[in-house]
Amino acid sequence: VVEWFDDLAVGMRFKSPEKAVTREEIIRFASEFDPQPYHLDEAAAEQTPLKGLAASGWHTAAIAMRLVVELRPFGPHPLLGLGVDELRWLAPVRPGDKLHLWGLGGANDLAVLVVNKEAINRRLPKRGGTV
Amino acid sequence: VVEWFDDLAVGMRFKSPEKAVTREEIIRFASEFDPQPYHLDEAAAEQTPLKGLAASGWHTAAIAMRLVVELRPFGPHPLLGLGVDELRWLAPVRPGDKLHLWGLGGANDLAVLVVNKEAINRRLPKRGGTV
Repeated sequence: VVEWFDDLAVGMRFKSPEKAVTREEIIRFASEFDPQPYHLDEAAAEQTPLKGLAASGWHTAAIAMRLVVELRPFGPHPLLGLGVDELRWLAPVRPGDKLHLWGLGGANDLAVLVVNKEAINRRLPKRGGTV
Repeated sequence: VVEWFDDLAVGMRFKSPEKAVTREEIIRFASEFDPQPYHLDEAAAEQTPLKGLAASGWHTAAIAMRLVVELRPFGPHPLLGLGVDELRWLAPVRPGDKLHLWGLGGANDLAVLVVNKEAINRRLPKRGGTV
């Protein structure tokens, strides 16, 4: 368990529990925050470039946050982010997909810990977004 | 209204409707996606660097997405993002704060439209995150 800043090291690895994403969750999140055809309705979603119902990218990002909180990479200390760079949505998250998070501690010029996280979709060989 | 890709121009400006964020919404979102003291409980939040209850940064980002959808900067065409860079959370969003989005069309080397968005918090002189 990481308890102090000095316990952190570049190259530390983290792996989160897994979260299954349901159709109901996808539609509920999208209805509130991203009401577009890809995220609300199977038939309409088929006609889009995503070729079927998929979670809002912001939903995937929010699930990734939940997984980080469950992971507690910094032990008892809460997590407070300054921002995000290079977030990429590489593949659609479908109903029933199971996501987990994989992380690697790095460092930037400001000596702020940079956590490189990757949400892995178990259905796919190697996919997901980097948050 | 922007209907075709050719209708887009670097320098176009967009302004969204306004969204008031409630205490109940902050706690509900955080309970599901970011269950940490800053976002769940006033008394606990007072003891943190945020000095009071504040929305999860992912909640602010999701609200910004909702405002983009309402804004419809591309007219009838749905919005599908590839990713996000330089997202920064510059100030806490408190219960009762009113957010709107301000956007500016740009371009990158790949000729993909880059939309620089800023969530403005009406309570503050000039704040918010860039999504």
